[in-house]
This record gives sequence, structure tokens and C-alpha cells, in this order.
Amino acid sequence: MSVQKQYPKCLALLGSTGSVGTQTLDCVRMHPNEFKVLALTAQNNIDLLEKQAREFSVETVGIANLEKAEEFRRRVKGKIHVEEGLEGILKICAYEEADTVLNALVGNIGLRPTLHAMKHKKNVALANKETMVSGGELVMEAARRNKVHLVPIDSEHSAIFQCLNGENKGEISKIILTCSGGPFRGKKLNELKGVTKEQALNHPTWKMGGKITIDSATLMNKGFEVVEAMWLYGVEPERIEVVVHPQSLIHSMVEFVDASIIAQLGTHDMRTPIQYALTYPRRMKCPATRLNLLEAKQFTFEKPDMETFQCLARGYEAARRKGTTATAINAVNDECVGAFLDGKIEFLDIQRTIQKVAEKNRHVTHPVLEDILNADEWARRETRKELGIELSIPVR
Amino acid sequence: MSVQKQYPKCLALLGSTGSVGTQTLDCVRMHPNEFKVLALTAQNNIDLLEKQAREFSVETVGIANLEKAEEFRRRVKGKIHVEEGLEGILKICAYEEADTVLNALVGNIGLRPTLHAMKHKKNVALANKETMVSGGELVMEAARRNKVHLVPIDSEHSAIFQCLNGENKGEISKIILTCSGGPFRGKKLNELKGVTKEQALNHPTWKMGGKITIDSATLMNKGFEVVEAMWLYGVEPERIEVVVHPQSLIHSMVEFVDASIIAQLGTHDMRTPIQYALTYPRRMKCPATRLNLLEAKQFTFEKPDMETFQCLARGYEAARRKGTTATAINAVNDECVGAFLDGKIEFLDIQRTIQKVAEKNRHVTHPVLEDILNADEWARRETRKELGIELSIPVR
Repeated sequence: MSVQKQYPKCLALLGSTGSVGTQTLDCVRMHPNEFKVLALTAQNNIDLLEKQAREFSVETVGIANLEKAEEFRRRVKGKIHVEEGLEGILKICAYEEADTVLNALVGNIGLRPTLHAMKHKKNVALANKETMVSGGELVMEAARRNKVHLVPIDSEHSAIFQCLNGENKGEISKIILTCSGGPFRGKKLNELKGVTKEQALNHPTWKMGGKITIDSATLMNKGFEVVEAMWLYGVEPERIEVVVHPQSLIHSMVEFVDASIIAQLGTHDMRTPIQYALTYPRRMKCPATRLNLLEAKQFTFEKPDMETFQCLARGYEAARRKGTTATAINAVNDECVGAFLDGKIEFLDIQRTIQKVAEKNRHVTHPVLEDILNADEWARRETRKELGIELSIPVR
Repeated sequence: MSVQKQYPKCLALLGSTGSVGTQTLDCVRMHPNEFKVLALTAQNNIDLLEKQAREFSVETVGIANLEKAEEFRRRVKGKIHVEEGLEGILKICAYEEADTVLNALVGNIGLRPTLHAMKHKKNVALANKETMVSGGELVMEAARRNKVHLVPIDSEHSAIFQCLNGENKGEISKIILTCSGGPFRGKKLNELKGVTKEQALNHPTWKMGGKITIDSATLMNKGFEVVEAMWLYGVEPERIEVVVHPQSLIHSMVEFVDASIIAQLGTHDMRTPIQYALTYPRRMKCPATRLNLLEAKQFTFEKPDMETFQCLARGYEAARRKGTTATAINAVNDECVGAFLDGKIEFLDIQRTIQKVAEKNRHVTHPVLEDILNADEWARRETRKELGIELSIPVR
């Protein structure tokens, strides 16, 4: 009997050792008869990868770092098949027996695996933000052409996706993206001078990786979500409203033409949107903690301050322009956040540099993959030149 | 060309001169090519009924009060066909060219028209609460048997209905019914002694008719909604949670097995749920005011106080027992609220009498229509005996 017949869902999990990856495996653990993990991939963390591969009897792993791949091969002595580098990850995306690829890769490396998985008729559960920010148009087109589902995992986009369940996209009046406001909510520009990495990493509601936590502090994350929402739901940025909701319990909302608003709520537990992306259009019991409204007590709402948090305004601009502007902004931001986390630039240098470099971007309105990769590389080099520093992350 | 071919929806509107009726006509006015009103009915208000009939070129009206029907006939001199009494309303429910009956009748008179409309294969947009409270099981069975849609108009039940759009009822974990708490929220039993009719009619969020406003003050309304939710969505009362949300902007929510909560929000404008019941599963532009979250600023949540507001506990009990207990409670409550509005009993007499009379109800678990009508009549007579007063409303 084939694996597909034994399990309703056969998964390839890209980025299994990160925060989304490990939480995905929590959901798999809860439903051993529903999910079969066929392949796992990691960048460097082969200790955890090996543990995961053994627990879930995974036959194939992909390891991005070539040296780590070699070391892993020595350890497992042929008992687990090892693919390596980006090419190895792409092979895993085309893995014949998998029906769904969960892409929890971090960074711009995520775009090609998404497209490759779709080309091979896999449904994609998408946690990699860069896929939609950099290549939104291409990805939506690939999903349509290959007739596969693309289900977002990001809490906001999963919320919108759930709010649109059974609804007609043509009847959307606006999308209301909620935003925690980050650790610097309420601060003005002059108060953000010299804030430290530790302050920026101290997110009020969500526990996430370093890069995305900084993006939440600059509101670049929310700017990117405007771009993603535009592509995912086909709604122009004029009809995407960002509302600061510091409790982050309403994960986002959709207002329809009849004035009705549908919202999705939950705790700050990514296992609900992760699992939903795998079980859609069904829902199953989930290890996520449940929201107790009586304990939550209150929800508040505020207008975002785009004069202080200029990255949000950049996101709106990128959405209006479409094409490679968002790609470039994403690359500049990536480099800047790396530099900030390395202690090489100030917090406010991030938004300043994004504006300066993105302005010079040679905009391509309907980019093919090559245009996107070029815009990304150009923006990274330009950022390094602008900042006058060598960064620890190589230009990809 | 037949009327049905000219208009997507052909309506019979029962109770057109009341609050829901007039707001229904606001929606019809906005979509003159979508809706055709074929018939209107009223109890007494023939002045407004005539105005409505002329504006919407309605050919048939139904008038419950026989004298008023006669007067109306004299006025319109044969230009509008007039049906009279309950029998006339039932004829209108069977009106061949109508595809949808909107039932905005007030009181227990609403049950038979709902059943009659379903028998004649009409979809029912339901604003008459008594239909579901008194006859929930019968009505759900009639909807199934006749394969017609039953779409609730009550803001809470419309919210739940909308939250379930595209979802699987088997995946509901609980229904969260929101409740404004009414004008006496936070008060204890001893503080409710001697409260006046004016205080009880001063609802904090919704503008509604007198009867339902008193039901909101006692929380009997919320108790009835527990019964209605049980029938409408097939969810046992243990999985229906009432949460006090004084702003009444989240109209209700559904929690699913995966811990995800879907909520429906909006202003206190009934035109959204009214119109949705007519356009379902589509949505159309609506005259309702839109919710501005930045102006709303905050949502709060509290536990309901069932020791003070005992009618809510009675509603849960009725839902657990099913059958004619809710019918009897509804009838006792109807009589008591009438007596309270007439200044003949105290506010706390309402819940006291409901408990006392309902206890003596000869419970029928799976009632047919006759059992429901008998339980209703018995409870009304018993209430009058208990209160020792003659009421202005006749036993129906």
C-alpha cells in the first residue's frame, strides 16, 4: 500500500528545526494517523534534525549547509537519505509521494522552493514571508496554473484566509490587518534614537525569531503583510487597513460590502494557523492553547503612527507599485536587520536605509524569477555600500 | 415574464410595520432590481402599511386585526388585495410567486407562518424568536424535510450563521453568545427591587421594541438565544457559552476544535443581518452604518451573573430539557413582560413567576404543533392565575 493511501496528508517540511517547524511537528505528533512526514530540511541544526527524523521515521532530509550535510551523512551511515544545498531542497519539493510542502524556510531562499513545489502540483502551506513579499505575483500565478492550494501560516494571513471561508472575494470591502504595535508602540521618532537590540527584541505579545521580532518593532513586518495581503487576496492596498490592536488576540478581519466584519481570534499560539494550513478546508483537534475571553478582559484599537514607523508606509508604497519594489525593500531590510542585530547600525538606520536604497531600485512591474533574484542581489549590494560595512550574512 | 424571472428574490414580508419590517424595506429600497416585495402584513398599523404598499407597488397585504382589515379595504377600494387574520397571513406564506418569507412577526403568532412557509417550499428569513424558542425541533425538521434555507436575523444568530459559513458544524467546539448585559449589568438581586419600567427600557446599546428590551434587561432574551442556538446549530447547551460584552460590537463567535475562534462584528444596525438573510449566501451593498474600530476603541468581556439574572439559567435549563419547557417559559415570560409594561407587577416578579410556573409545566419532549400550542395556552392561563390579574393581551 502506498504512503498516500495510508495517510490523508503526506508532508515535506522545509525548515523543521525553526519555531514554525517544531510547532508543525507538535501538530503531527497529535495526529499520527492523519499526517506522515516524508522529508525534513534544516539549515545547520543537524542535532535536532536527526532527533526529528528518528522520531517521525523520516526517510529523507535536506540540509542547506554542505558541511553539515556531510557530517549528518557520516552520523546516520546511510540509514537516512540526505539531500544538500538549495538543489537538495528543491528535489524534496518535488518528492513524488508528498502532497503538501510546508515552507517554513527563513529568508529569501524560500521563494524558489515554493514555486518548485507548485510546479510539481504540491499544495503549499506557507510560513516563508519572502515568498509572497518578493514574488507574490509569480507565486499566485503558479498556484492558479498548477491548481494547487496556497494556505498562509502567518497568523494575520491565516486569519484573513479563515474569515474568507465560504465567502466571495468579490464581496470584500476591506481587509483589516491587526498589528500589535511592537515594543515601541506610542513612541515618537526622537524617542527611538539609540534604542537597543534588547529593547527591540522584547516583543509584547508574540515569541518569534530575532529577524521577525525586529521587523515587528519597525512595523516593516506589517508593511510586508500589506503586500502579501494584496497578492493573497487580490485586494488593492487602498482597501487594506492596518489597525493597532496591542493584545494581538484578533489576528485580522475582513469587512464585506454589507458592513459585516468577520474576524479570527486566538491565543498567540502558531499551532492553530500551522495546523489549519495542513488540514484546510477541515479543522482538527489542535495542541494550541485556547483563548479565554474572560481572562483576556479587553481588546483595544489604535491608529498606527506611520510618521514614526515609516516602514509601514514603505510597505503600502511597495504594494501600490507592485513588481520588484517590495523585493528590493525586503532585501534592504534583511541586510539592515542583520547589521542591527550585529550591533553595526542603529535602529532608525533600518528605516532610513530602506527608504534611501529602495528609491534607487530599477523597478520591474511584472518580474520573472530572474528579475526578482536580480533585484534582491542588487539591493543587498547597494545596502552594504550604503552602510559601508561588511555583513556576516553572504549575498545570496 | 413572471415576477420570479424579473427579480432574483420575491419576498413576502410578515410584520412590515415593525422595527425589522421597516429596516427590511430600507434594504429593498437600496436594491430595486434585486428584490420584489409581493406581500406585506401588519397587525394594526394600516396607515404605514398603506404607505409601504404604495411605495413598493405591493399587490397583496395581510392584516391580523379584522376591523383594521375592513377599514383598509374601504380605503383602497379594491386596488390592493387584502387578506385578514392568521388565516390570511398563512395564505400569504403560501403565495405561489414568493420564494422567501421574511418573518418579522412579534410573539408566538410567528410559529405557524414559519412552518406553513416551509411546507410551501419557501426559504425563511427569521426574525420571530418565538418560532425557534417554542418550536425549534419542529421547525428544523420542517426545514430539512422541505429542503429550504432558514436564515436567522437576530444579530447574535446571524453572527453565528455567518461564522459558520464554509465551516463544518461537526468541527464546532463551542458557540460564544455575546450579551450586552442590559441596563442592569453589574447590579445584584437586592438592587433590582423596585426598578422602574423606564429604567428597564433604557437599553445601553440596541434600540428595539419594548418587549425585547425588557427581555434584554432580565437576560431572558439571552436564555432564549441559548435555546435557539441549540436548535439552529445543533449544539448542546453545555457547549454554548454566554459572555457579557457591554459594547455589543462582536455579535457572537464560534470556537472550533482547532482553538480558532471566528467572530462577526458590526454596529448596532439590524440592516446587515436582515439583508444577509435575504441575499445569503451572497452579500450586497447595504444601507447599514459601518463599524469604525478606532472610534469603538475597546471591547470588554465579563462573566454573566446567573444568580442575579435567573432567566439566563432558566434558558439553559430549557435547552437541556428540550421539548415544551422553553414553550412554557416563553409564554410565562410574554405574559409577565406585558404585566410589567402595564405597571401591574415588579421587575423581579418576572423571573420569579417564570421559575414558579415553568416548574409545573407538563413537559412533552418531542412535541407536535398541537402540544406546543397547548403548552403555550396552559402557561399563559397559569401565569394569569399566579399573578391574580387580568391582562390586556388576550390568551392566543
